[in-house]
Amino acid sequence: MTQVKQIYAFDEGNAGMRDLLGGKGAGLAEMTRAGLPVPEGFTITTAACRAYFAAGGEWPEGLLDALDEAVSQLEERTGLKLGDPDRPLLVSVRSGAVFSMPGMMDTILNLGLNDDTVLGLARRTGQDRFAWDCYRRFIQMYGDVVLGVDHYAFEQIIDEQKAARGVRLDTELSAEDWKNVVEEYKQLVEKETKRPFPQNPREQLLGAVRAVFSSWNNQRAVVYRKIHGIPEDLGTAVNIQRMVFGNLGDDSGTGVVFTRNPATGEAKLYGEFLLNAQGEDVVAGIRTPSPIAQLEETMPEVYRQLLDVARKLERHYRDVQDIEFTVERGRLFLLQTRAAKRTAQAAVKAAVDLAKEGIIDRVEAIRRVDPDSLTQLLHRRIDEAADLDRLAKGLPASPGAASGRVVFDADEAVRRANEGEAVILVRSETTPEDIHGIVASQGVLTSRGGMTSHAAVVARGMGKACVCGCESVRIDFRKREFLVEDGRTIREGDVITIDGGTGQVYLGAAPLVAPVLSPEFQELLAWGDEVRKLSVLANADNPEDAAKAREFGAQGIGLCRTEHMFLGPDRVSIVQRMILAEDEEERGRALEELLPLQRQDFVGILRAMAGLPVTVRLLDPPLHEFLPNLEDLLVEVTQLRERGDDPDRLRERERLLRKVRVLHEANPMLGHRGCRLGITFPEVYRVQVRALYEAAAELAAGGVSVKPEVMIPLVGHHRELEILRAQVIEEAERVLQEKGVELPIKVGTMIEVPRAALTAGEIAAQADFFSFGTNDLTQMTFGFSRDDAEGKFLHAYVQGGILDADPFMVLDEPGVGRLIRWAVQEGRTANPELKVGICGEHGGDPRSITFCHNVGLDYVSCSPYRVPVARLAAARAALG
Amino acid sequence: MTQVKQIYAFDEGNAGMRDLLGGKGAGLAEMTRAGLPVPEGFTITTAACRAYFAAGGEWPEGLLDALDEAVSQLEERTGLKLGDPDRPLLVSVRSGAVFSMPGMMDTILNLGLNDDTVLGLARRTGQDRFAWDCYRRFIQMYGDVVLGVDHYAFEQIIDEQKAARGVRLDTELSAEDWKNVVEEYKQLVEKETKRPFPQNPREQLLGAVRAVFSSWNNQRAVVYRKIHGIPEDLGTAVNIQRMVFGNLGDDSGTGVVFTRNPATGEAKLYGEFLLNAQGEDVVAGIRTPSPIAQLEETMPEVYRQLLDVARKLERHYRDVQDIEFTVERGRLFLLQTRAAKRTAQAAVKAAVDLAKEGIIDRVEAIRRVDPDSLTQLLHRRIDEAADLDRLAKGLPASPGAASGRVVFDADEAVRRANEGEAVILVRSETTPEDIHGIVASQGVLTSRGGMTSHAAVVARGMGKACVCGCESVRIDFRKREFLVEDGRTIREGDVITIDGGTGQVYLGAAPLVAPVLSPEFQELLAWGDEVRKLSVLANADNPEDAAKAREFGAQGIGLCRTEHMFLGPDRVSIVQRMILAEDEEERGRALEELLPLQRQDFVGILRAMAGLPVTVRLLDPPLHEFLPNLEDLLVEVTQLRERGDDPDRLRERERLLRKVRVLHEANPMLGHRGCRLGITFPEVYRVQVRALYEAAAELAAGGVSVKPEVMIPLVGHHRELEILRAQVIEEAERVLQEKGVELPIKVGTMIEVPRAALTAGEIAAQADFFSFGTNDLTQMTFGFSRDDAEGKFLHAYVQGGILDADPFMVLDEPGVGRLIRWAVQEGRTANPELKVGICGEHGGDPRSITFCHNVGLDYVSCSPYRVPVARLAAARAALG
Repeated sequence: MTQVKQIYAFDEGNAGMRDLLGGKGAGLAEMTRAGLPVPEGFTITTAACRAYFAAGGEWPEGLLDALDEAVSQLEERTGLKLGDPDRPLLVSVRSGAVFSMPGMMDTILNLGLNDDTVLGLARRTGQDRFAWDCYRRFIQMYGDVVLGVDHYAFEQIIDEQKAARGVRLDTELSAEDWKNVVEEYKQLVEKETKRPFPQNPREQLLGAVRAVFSSWNNQRAVVYRKIHGIPEDLGTAVNIQRMVFGNLGDDSGTGVVFTRNPATGEAKLYGEFLLNAQGEDVVAGIRTPSPIAQLEETMPEVYRQLLDVARKLERHYRDVQDIEFTVERGRLFLLQTRAAKRTAQAAVKAAVDLAKEGIIDRVEAIRRVDPDSLTQLLHRRIDEAADLDRLAKGLPASPGAASGRVVFDADEAVRRANEGEAVILVRSETTPEDIHGIVASQGVLTSRGGMTSHAAVVARGMGKACVCGCESVRIDFRKREFLVEDGRTIREGDVITIDGGTGQVYLGAAPLVAPVLSPEFQELLAWGDEVRKLSVLANADNPEDAAKAREFGAQGIGLCRTEHMFLGPDRVSIVQRMILAEDEEERGRALEELLPLQRQDFVGILRAMAGLPVTVRLLDPPLHEFLPNLEDLLVEVTQLRERGDDPDRLRERERLLRKVRVLHEANPMLGHRGCRLGITFPEVYRVQVRALYEAAAELAAGGVSVKPEVMIPLVGHHRELEILRAQVIEEAERVLQEKGVELPIKVGTMIEVPRAALTAGEIAAQADFFSFGTNDLTQMTFGFSRDDAEGKFLHAYVQGGILDADPFMVLDEPGVGRLIRWAVQEGRTANPELKVGICGEHGGDPRSITFCHNVGLDYVSCSPYRVPVARLAAARAALG
Repeated sequence: MTQVKQIYAFDEGNAGMRDLLGGKGAGLAEMTRAGLPVPEGFTITTAACRAYFAAGGEWPEGLLDALDEAVSQLEERTGLKLGDPDRPLLVSVRSGAVFSMPGMMDTILNLGLNDDTVLGLARRTGQDRFAWDCYRRFIQMYGDVVLGVDHYAFEQIIDEQKAARGVRLDTELSAEDWKNVVEEYKQLVEKETKRPFPQNPREQLLGAVRAVFSSWNNQRAVVYRKIHGIPEDLGTAVNIQRMVFGNLGDDSGTGVVFTRNPATGEAKLYGEFLLNAQGEDVVAGIRTPSPIAQLEETMPEVYRQLLDVARKLERHYRDVQDIEFTVERGRLFLLQTRAAKRTAQAAVKAAVDLAKEGIIDRVEAIRRVDPDSLTQLLHRRIDEAADLDRLAKGLPASPGAASGRVVFDADEAVRRANEGEAVILVRSETTPEDIHGIVASQGVLTSRGGMTSHAAVVARGMGKACVCGCESVRIDFRKREFLVEDGRTIREGDVITIDGGTGQVYLGAAPLVAPVLSPEFQELLAWGDEVRKLSVLANADNPEDAAKAREFGAQGIGLCRTEHMFLGPDRVSIVQRMILAEDEEERGRALEELLPLQRQDFVGILRAMAGLPVTVRLLDPPLHEFLPNLEDLLVEVTQLRERGDDPDRLRERERLLRKVRVLHEANPMLGHRGCRLGITFPEVYRVQVRALYEAAAELAAGGVSVKPEVMIPLVGHHRELEILRAQVIEEAERVLQEKGVELPIKVGTMIEVPRAALTAGEIAAQADFFSFGTNDLTQMTFGFSRDDAEGKFLHAYVQGGILDADPFMVLDEPGVGRLIRWAVQEGRTANPELKVGICGEHGGDPRSITFCHNVGLDYVSCSPYRVPVARLAAARAALG
């Protein structure tokens, strides 16, 4: 019977043998195989570990022989010998599981030292202090890990030695001091274990291997595996490797290098080096390392080798590497290499550079960059190096960072902005009446409301930073100040910084970093554009956003919300007159006043998107959103009643309150909005359609290519769309005829009500396109009001594992996705010409975009700043 | 070539030839065929009419010959002759379309009269005045319908004649007077048409037939057909029938009889009779008809004939008939018969009696009664004969009628009720704090809120009359009065009557009729029970409702809502303490106080339903529903601040306001409720489960058979159910073990969130049963908040034909139904033991019940008063 091979020398393994050799063993083998200078060693397999457990903690058959054989080979290769006082072989013994369990299992260094070999080491290196320090470290580690002696006891001995010598630092202890410490250590071990510290290196080695095997079952490791879902029965490999030392003098040292700059991606060695030191010393932070470039002066040959190794490693692993190395007396050794963590900027540059250097292909370059990370590159952000004074944390409602003076109302925001001040508008929540204040501000901070609150939606639409639902901030409007959790008070005029990408709020003006749109960024996205199947459009409501979206590569506008055209200080009063109109005529007059304003907006948007489709969604929100807040009015009316000093004002406010009450809804999300408004107040949609086509006709007459499309929101029944489609076409045709311009008229619908998806076949017969409004579709399919859910239970659901992810961030495939699949299929069957896309926030989420690709949508539409994300995600989805 | 037959004598046709002969023609033929005494006549077919139009208004080939032939036959049969002064044949000419278009087309009577035959008629009848009156009527009708002379001109001539004779009534005019009128009529016709009034009866007949044909296209008829969706190209038949006269003396007369009493169903001839009169006279209301029974005395032979005819007609048509008849000189003639309109009570009794008499079978009896009509029999209702003073109309929110004194708050309701007064609670809307007032009242009237408003739901639950959303009522709470549209003011203490079945509000105490649960009612339902497949359970929240439901035949409780157990003056304060609790311990104490109260409720309910399943739904509504209204608090706090005289109260109210604000939700329907509460506050559900199983154990130990089942509301993800199911089972087992009782534990879920239906397979694995909560499922599938939709756009949608029916009344098959079908199929596939039912309001709607049967549900559950409706509807569904 052939014995299964239980030990592999590093040059016998490779990266593919991870299951057998563990992650570290496979990595060391792979480096060795690649001809890199790795200290020699071998790996005891995970199978041997399992056999050890299976045998109830006895050495499995043949393992001891194999171990002796492996040690002999190692001695032969290194010219050293375990226990030989003249040429002592010292090794490290490390665990190495299949799945990384950082810090969970044990390591022993300098194994092989005893009372004889320590002298040999001192002789060979000529460094007494170094040798005795190594020895005492070994006894300490071995005593703790293998023999179970409490490590505090060892530390106490050092403390006593330092006290006796009147010094403070370990480095101040001499060779003689360490020799004393070793003596005391050995007495401690003998006292605790009733046996002298093992002097036989083979015995040391067997003890260490047993200890590493057993560490698989220590409590920390068991808990870690449970949390991370790692199977219990894998076992760990054991790596035994010759020790190398960076602390043997000024021709030695240790360091960490990245093959490219992990912050910028620049193709230049980046890292730090500490002369005459061990890895531990770098971590301890006692001495300050030098930049790696200085190595070129101090050890030009080693530096040249390092450059060469870096190049080899990148080619071998086909990625930027983060390398741990040691120089022992002018000789370079690699101890570890792994893919380097990097910023988004570096990831993009490195991926493109690697592709250009032929190390990876373009497909691989696309796969190397996390689409989500791209948004970091598009907004101003807080300098990572800055020292920040954190005040509070809310929801990251609209990305980007902004600093400014705190103001508590929109008028004050405008006043200060006009005087040239940067301001942050702080409100409990915003309403349409605050719009001019938001426009005037650098960013918005609210203490109430979620990711779809008014402030969040408006800020995202404007590309302004916004932190919402920051409940730990307690605003006192009368005192014009807010309190934070630690009791500090921030007054109007104080400067704060908000980070809408993280939800953090800081005191003072944090240093901000401008966005970088490098050539590599553009290049990578262009490569992606060649492979993706999904078109990427943008959600944009004004010419500025449209231009921004186009700059980011949007292929049109998939959602132009028109409600923002009803806001702003010059408009909201007209809109209120329209809503409060007592008769058709009065309403008509108000609508006529809005017509030129809307037309002007459409001209700007259509011009910015010349040649590309612009999908305009007719009015969606319930009308009461344009009126003053019911609660505010109630308070005002109560005050006026109590005071009794202004009966005229009271009457007027009471009248308004009555009207607001009539329009008030128990569940406005499911109320009188969307196409339900279009059906009951056809004149509102009529004027919107007129404004759009007058704008289109004007531009078309001037030679601009325009492609307007009209989208009806909240359709749930095909009859709704049938009626409104006819009205839209009638009015559009009337305008085009008046202006003598010919344009195709396209009318489609949002699919955002579950019933629309369920009856998609019937609806498709009336539609040129479907656009899944996945925000509302998710709300209704789950029965979650997003604003209510986020503060109250959604967080608990995600934390508690009831939901895998927030369904408003990542599209829910089993539920919402099933409706979408169904609607796409039945819609296309009923109308093969149907264009199908998505315009909810999921349109900018990579995982959701993968679903969109798989389900065969034609396009995704997302906010301008997500367009690059979506382009890249769509490309990755197409690559599968 | 054989000519298609264009005219059918009455004895040549039958009821099946409706398409060709029209409704009236087919009916007259059928009666003739059945050997009943119908005046002779014939029908010109609709095909002939179409041929007439096809020929551009010319007589189609062969029609004139056929008409002459038919007239000859008629002359032969009657022994009379058209235009013969001695034996003049007089006929009626009437239209008769395939679909009834009452009053839309024209009729001509007494055709055949001219200057000669009028004398013959006078001679034959011996009644000059009668003859001349007939002639003038004929000229007037013919002049108007055929010749197009304005009928006002004719009436003016009569008025002048009456003025000349100094009389007021037509009946005061003599034969001579009518003769003068005829003379003037003829002059009028000649002046208007430039031709003398046609004296030739054949010419008269051809003109009349043309006029009836043409009346198919008169404007009234065209509009009627458009509204009722009747095809334009059917044409009308023309019926020509010998005239009979009930006004030839005291051996003549006319009347209407029902073969059974249409109000009670009593198997006894019912109707009225007017001696010496024509049908027109009955309608004119100049003389008061006698009850039909008197005919037995005045004309015993005719009465006997009538009885015989009634029996024959019922056997022939297999239904209760409404018969028009005329007696001409002692001879009975039938002019029309049709199925009698009847009350629900009559329908039930007649159907059962007819079945017992062997005229129909039991299946047919079941089909004869509209299930919806049964509710009329279960509530007190307003006497139909009463003279009522209508004040306003709202939504019919909870059936039944109630009278009482108006009160404007719950405490006043209780105070007056304790003094023995019947009261109607009038509020703008109700909240949980009004519950004791609702309990104390006969009924509730609100000016706001829809069919699912608090008042409506609570009233239906209690079986109290309720009219909701009565917006024309303007309540002034300070003055303690309300205004109605016509300007009248109703003060506290005034008596009103509300009809929750129609939404009407009346002044004063309208006479009420007690419900009748006849033996026939029970019998019919028992017959239905034998054929139906669906079980019928009830929605009941208290012992009284449970007992009522059982009395009506419920087979258990399909939905026992527990939120009502949290209400009532003794409980709501404990519940508020629980909600406002600052820590777990305080919350726990409040819950402990609620435990015995809930247990006592469950004991009552389980006892009332001994031996039958009781499905208990754990707490569903959001917690803020148990707290004071936010707006009221805001007003109070503002007032306290303005007045500044009670700082302690202000602080306390401000604290409450803050808490209410925290719990306040933008869209409570989609907020923190249902199982989301169960997940975040597990102790609430735990106490409910404990109360239920303690009650069950107590009864079981006493020998009562109990079958509790626990239902989790608002599940949207299988993990929610998995977690809560485990918690329910754990607590239930703990209780049963404590009590030493064994009971099976069943846990199921509502399917009311679209996502639950979409992932029914996963959810079914965790459920013993599904219960479709179609109210919420409809709200979320349509994206309609019922309360908001009903007042704002749903009415317009139904009126405008966008929706065929209110989806909250009749289940929407294409959308909601599709989800249900899917969930049933996937749920049963995943769990073949799954019991599946419905507990939304649709569970009591006959059309929706048919869907439930077709989709294969196991049961429907509805409010107690709908149980008989559901039993009958389920039977009819099973009959297909």
